[in-house]
Amino acid sequence: MDLAQLEERARDRLGPVVYGYFAGGADDELTLADNAAAWNRIRLRPHVLRDVGAVSLASTVLGAAVPFPVLVAPMAYHRLAHPEGEAATAAGAAAAGAGLVVSTMATVPLEDVAKAAPGGLRWFQLYVHRDRGYTEELVSRAAEAGYQALVLTVDTPTLGNRRREARHDFKLPAGLTLANLVTRSAGAEAVLDVNEFARSQFDPTLTLDVIGWLRERAPLPVVVKGVLRGDDAAACVDAGASAVAVSNHGGRQLDTVVATADALPEVVEAVGGRAEVYVDGGVRRGTDVLKAVAMGARVVMVGRPVLWGLAVAGADGVRGVLDGLRGDTELAMALAGVPSLADVDRDLLAPPRGPQF
Amino acid sequence: MDLAQLEERARDRLGPVVYGYFAGGADDELTLADNAAAWNRIRLRPHVLRDVGAVSLASTVLGAAVPFPVLVAPMAYHRLAHPEGEAATAAGAAAAGAGLVVSTMATVPLEDVAKAAPGGLRWFQLYVHRDRGYTEELVSRAAEAGYQALVLTVDTPTLGNRRREARHDFKLPAGLTLANLVTRSAGAEAVLDVNEFARSQFDPTLTLDVIGWLRERAPLPVVVKGVLRGDDAAACVDAGASAVAVSNHGGRQLDTVVATADALPEVVEAVGGRAEVYVDGGVRRGTDVLKAVAMGARVVMVGRPVLWGLAVAGADGVRGVLDGLRGDTELAMALAGVPSLADVDRDLLAPPRGPQF
Amino acid sequence: MDLAQLEERARDRLGPVVYGYFAGGADDELTLADNAAAWNRIRLRPHVLRDVGAVSLASTVLGAAVPFPVLVAPMAYHRLAHPEGEAATAAGAAAAGAGLVVSTMATVPLEDVAKAAPGGLRWFQLYVHRDRGYTEELVSRAAEAGYQALVLTVDTPTLGNRRREARHDFKLPAGLTLANLVTRSAGAEAVLDVNEFARSQFDPTLTLDVIGWLRERAPLPVVVKGVLRGDDAAACVDAGASAVAVSNHGGRQLDTVVATADALPEVVEAVGGRAEVYVDGGVRRGTDVLKAVAMGARVVMVGRPVLWGLAVAGADGVRGVLDGLRGDTELAMALAGVPSLADVDRDLLAPPRGPQF
Amino acid sequence: MDLAQLEERARDRLGPVVYGYFAGGADDELTLADNAAAWNRIRLRPHVLRDVGAVSLASTVLGAAVPFPVLVAPMAYHRLAHPEGEAATAAGAAAAGAGLVVSTMATVPLEDVAKAAPGGLRWFQLYVHRDRGYTEELVSRAAEAGYQALVLTVDTPTLGNRRREARHDFKLPAGLTLANLVTRSAGAEAVLDVNEFARSQFDPTLTLDVIGWLRERAPLPVVVKGVLRGDDAAACVDAGASAVAVSNHGGRQLDTVVATADALPEVVEAVGGRAEVYVDGGVRRGTDVLKAVAMGARVVMVGRPVLWGLAVAGADGVRGVLDGLRGDTELAMALAGVPSLADVDRDLLAPPRGPQF
Repeated sequence: MDLAQLEERARDRLGPVVYGYFAGGADDELTLADNAAAWNRIRLRPHVLRDVGAVSLASTVLGAAVPFPVLVAPMAYHRLAHPEGEAATAAGAAAAGAGLVVSTMATVPLEDVAKAAPGGLRWFQLYVHRDRGYTEELVSRAAEAGYQALVLTVDTPTLGNRRREARHDFKLPAGLTLANLVTRSAGAEAVLDVNEFARSQFDPTLTLDVIGWLRERAPLPVVVKGVLRGDDAAACVDAGASAVAVSNHGGRQLDTVVATADALPEVVEAVGGRAEVYVDGGVRRGTDVLKAVAMGARVVMVGRPVLWGLAVAGADGVRGVLDGLRGDTELAMALAGVPSLADVDRDLLAPPRGPQF
Repeated sequence: MDLAQLEERARDRLGPVVYGYFAGGADDELTLADNAAAWNRIRLRPHVLRDVGAVSLASTVLGAAVPFPVLVAPMAYHRLAHPEGEAATAAGAAAAGAGLVVSTMATVPLEDVAKAAPGGLRWFQLYVHRDRGYTEELVSRAAEAGYQALVLTVDTPTLGNRRREARHDFKLPAGLTLANLVTRSAGAEAVLDVNEFARSQFDPTLTLDVIGWLRERAPLPVVVKGVLRGDDAAACVDAGASAVAVSNHGGRQLDTVVATADALPEVVEAVGGRAEVYVDGGVRRGTDVLKAVAMGARVVMVGRPVLWGLAVAGADGVRGVLDGLRGDTELAMALAGVPSLADVDRDLLAPPRGPQF
Repeated sequence: MDLAQLEERARDRLGPVVYGYFAGGADDELTLADNAAAWNRIRLRPHVLRDVGAVSLASTVLGAAVPFPVLVAPMAYHRLAHPEGEAATAAGAAAAGAGLVVSTMATVPLEDVAKAAPGGLRWFQLYVHRDRGYTEELVSRAAEAGYQALVLTVDTPTLGNRRREARHDFKLPAGLTLANLVTRSAGAEAVLDVNEFARSQFDPTLTLDVIGWLRERAPLPVVVKGVLRGDDAAACVDAGASAVAVSNHGGRQLDTVVATADALPEVVEAVGGRAEVYVDGGVRRGTDVLKAVAMGARVVMVGRPVLWGLAVAGADGVRGVLDGLRGDTELAMALAGVPSLADVDRDLLAPPRGPQF
Repeated sequence: MDLAQLEERARDRLGPVVYGYFAGGADDELTLADNAAAWNRIRLRPHVLRDVGAVSLASTVLGAAVPFPVLVAPMAYHRLAHPEGEAATAAGAAAAGAGLVVSTMATVPLEDVAKAAPGGLRWFQLYVHRDRGYTEELVSRAAEAGYQALVLTVDTPTLGNRRREARHDFKLPAGLTLANLVTRSAGAEAVLDVNEFARSQFDPTLTLDVIGWLRERAPLPVVVKGVLRGDDAAACVDAGASAVAVSNHGGRQLDTVVATADALPEVVEAVGGRAEVYVDGGVRRGTDVLKAVAMGARVVMVGRPVLWGLAVAGADGVRGVLDGLRGDTELAMALAGVPSLADVDRDLLAPPRGPQF
């Protein structure tokens, strides 16, 4: 799998406006670039002469077994990439055995997404709206539809300044609805200006209390996504979070924040095993997954590459990307001399390069 | 607001000679570039789940309330950018609620600048001339015209070596006068060679005593601008300065000096709260403002972008740049989880990147 | 000798597919590039006023005298570069006085390679196959043919992901056989898909025990090649290895592993003189050889440049590259003020650059 | 003075072969580039509000007063740049008040060079030849002609590998003689192959004893040029050197050695005031001179820029370059707030950049 080639093909299909929406980051896109660069800066110290005849990527996430430690990150508007939208993503992820996080901003109703992939690990991502009723309704629907966890995105009190969108005057095309929201808000059927919608609907006053509030609404564990600091991570766990996802929203919110790979160790240390820690941002290769796990992430979430697969070949494309990443991770583990994820820890990573005299 | 686009438009309007004068720096322009790069090198560690429903940028500067912590830096020759010169800048700044520092080298008399923006925060920048009478006269005029502080520029005992000016043989056009200086110096009406003027007029023998000398001339606080070291900053405060502005004159004086963002922490520490500290140099984004405040700057001064706005659209252009920066800073604060400037400190900043093992 | 020019000429001769096979690395080729860059990052601190009238590169490797501390690294398929293949390489190396490591994957039988260079230092590189009989047979044949050591490659439980090969759909041409393997495996006569062959034949379950197993099979010292960590190196020595070669397979196996020059000091320290340490990866110049020796490597192995010489001019080309590297190393020693390798230690190397205040 | 423009003009005049000879460095020219880059990496921490009404660059070198701390570095073959060769260089240097170091490899006899600049500081650079008689003769001639010191180059036991020369097959043109050497060596009249000459004539067996040997030959202080290490520098001083010049021969000898600006602090510390320390390599600007002095260099030597001036305008060109550098240094001192060299020390320099939290 050559993701750069796949992205090129997706770009050709999507056209500059939609591609720019998916690919872009905030402001000067420094954090967007740094997310990927940060994984590269970390060097591996592979072991040799370890029996890697059988390499296993099996893990558990919030108690559920997963065949490999990769989830599809929550992303909006999959129908911009493919007519079947999130349903195709779900089918592809399920075929690959990867967990899926469905976005509040999906363009297929969450119930239909669930049906498209009945068996697998399936979580629901939440933006909490100013109108809490919205959120309660979504939580109930997600629980009923068999979603197994709530992923609360906390880095989006308002939307970041994404210049590519401004340059292209990006709007949702007329036929696309925010399928999860139409039940309550007449307006959501015709959301065209994404920024305006977020500004008017998302609740910027959220505090740690929202974690407890959510836990009272449904018997589902809460994953807090968008944390970049140890102290915040610990506070989320104290407030009831079952897991924390180190994320900067793919570099789309506040530019020049720390890369997620740079923030991960601090969060892992602060959480101290009391909750699970995940990470996303710039993960493109098996070695990136391996490094994330070595730094203490239980799973990684992968975003844009999944959309490129979706754009190019629908569910099959999604499956291809995830299968590819799985194989790539398996290869990285074999070549690093670590037959199982339990063998992977920080000792596999080198400090910043340069000979030590 | 996309400042890079604005600068392009300004460059087209101004032509290479005037644009080169405004945009250029000393020698190889290493410090010019490093000023901007230094802000980028600092990474933010945003908080999440803080109530940012109401974000306030309000602060005070030398006791005066300001709606957001940005002043227009003193710059020469605004009429090179726009026929209305500093009067338009003042009107635009006032409309945006930003403070303004008017330069000795203005091309509109300081009294007329004051009239163009009667209400706002308005300081007067001084070059001290070999002929002290000049300076005394300027100080008196500034005080009478309602300027609220004197900004003493101390990094200019003589002018730096600006190659773009030399290459273009930059001279002031015939119709442009140094409007503040014509009262005393017949020559100032027809200053053409800026470097020659500075060399012959500016006093290179200034010492710390000039701070006390100035304070005796007018009941105005003295801001010392152009400090890059902690020891100098402390000495200025000991000598009576009310504030110190960390500045390298926008990279226009001595090339390869430290970037202002790199010098700021040392100055803040040395001053130790006994005076206010400001900073300029390469500030282009809300995150830059946020980082400056996090390192202890009370306000930032913004220079060249204001001239680009002035060149493109006069007072409206100035206002647009300042409004844009204000909104951008507000957004940065919301996304960093800090509802007010009082919540902003060094804990918001990451040490130089790279995972810590 | 200008190796960059030589490589260009070789590339023209070989064509993009074969050149890509030889030149390429794994994935994004970050480690491939870093191997070379790491030597550059190390700065020399030359001595002056030392008598360098006579400079000697003489050393010993596993007890055998060598005129200069360079071996030809084991590489597959020399007949892809030149019709005479490994026989020409052996002749060229012998003419230059350089030791040679012949690959299991040679395209000339190991006995014929031995005959082409009867006198010199000649080691045999082993991949251990799932079918151990293979390996036993190879070990016996190598011992009988006068090979003086076994070089066990341990970084290849399976093949890395080499995109250039995938892009070109690289296959061995029909006429080329894995000459050392045909005796036992009918299939080896017609190996076309290198990756498939490696995956099906190489034993991924090897552990440290294989070192003792090999030593029981032949009265030859075992060099373990592909080590990048101190702990692994020490374990190999404990298990009976006579030497350890710091290598990442020329950046062809796991991308983003540490550069060999960065890993070398740790390995030298861990081995603590109990065995010899070698290094390969990115060695292109006399100063690289000097730095490797200064960090404790007894010899360096040089790979791709030898193939470029082979491609351009057969045995003479190989000799030219090795003679050139020898002369270049001699010059580096004279200019560094070190007349013999015994004078070369870490004191010749500077810590990472930057003035120390 | 814009040295980049001057170099361009010189390159046009000299043609690629001669320009390549003067401009080039050894091997990959990494040290050549790093010499210049190292000065840039050092950041200045200028003082303000110091009286710089009168800035003095006056210093002494080996007891002789010099108006500014710059010498012309020894360089071979000035007649390649201009028909009057070293005589024009001497005249230009004298007119600018700069000291001059004349090379053994001059193309004008040392006596004639002396006559061209009777008054100034004038030193003679020595390569010690295998035939010591040569050197004795040169020493006597230099002393008689009023040279005030001997500069012993110690980084050239043989010549480095300069690819630009090899690529152009650089040879001295027929009419050019090594004017200082023809008295003794018939061959020197017709030296065409510089490398061959150096290899056959230069003595690679020199040790510290040569310093004492030289001191016995003439009542002149000995400057040892080409030192990059503290221990070597201290040993030279112990052996009788009056000064040590930190130099890597302009990056022309051993590539990847430390940049001179990086080596200087170590040498200054090791010498500990017992002798003078000079530096050359990449010095192009007044700030470079200032930084060198701040790190403890008594003078800097400037090489290639002088040749560019010579090529473009003979003696006037040389003077122009040196006057320019002097003015540039004066400006740097004024802007750094240091009125005399006695005020310049390491406190003026910043540690490697980056905010300190």
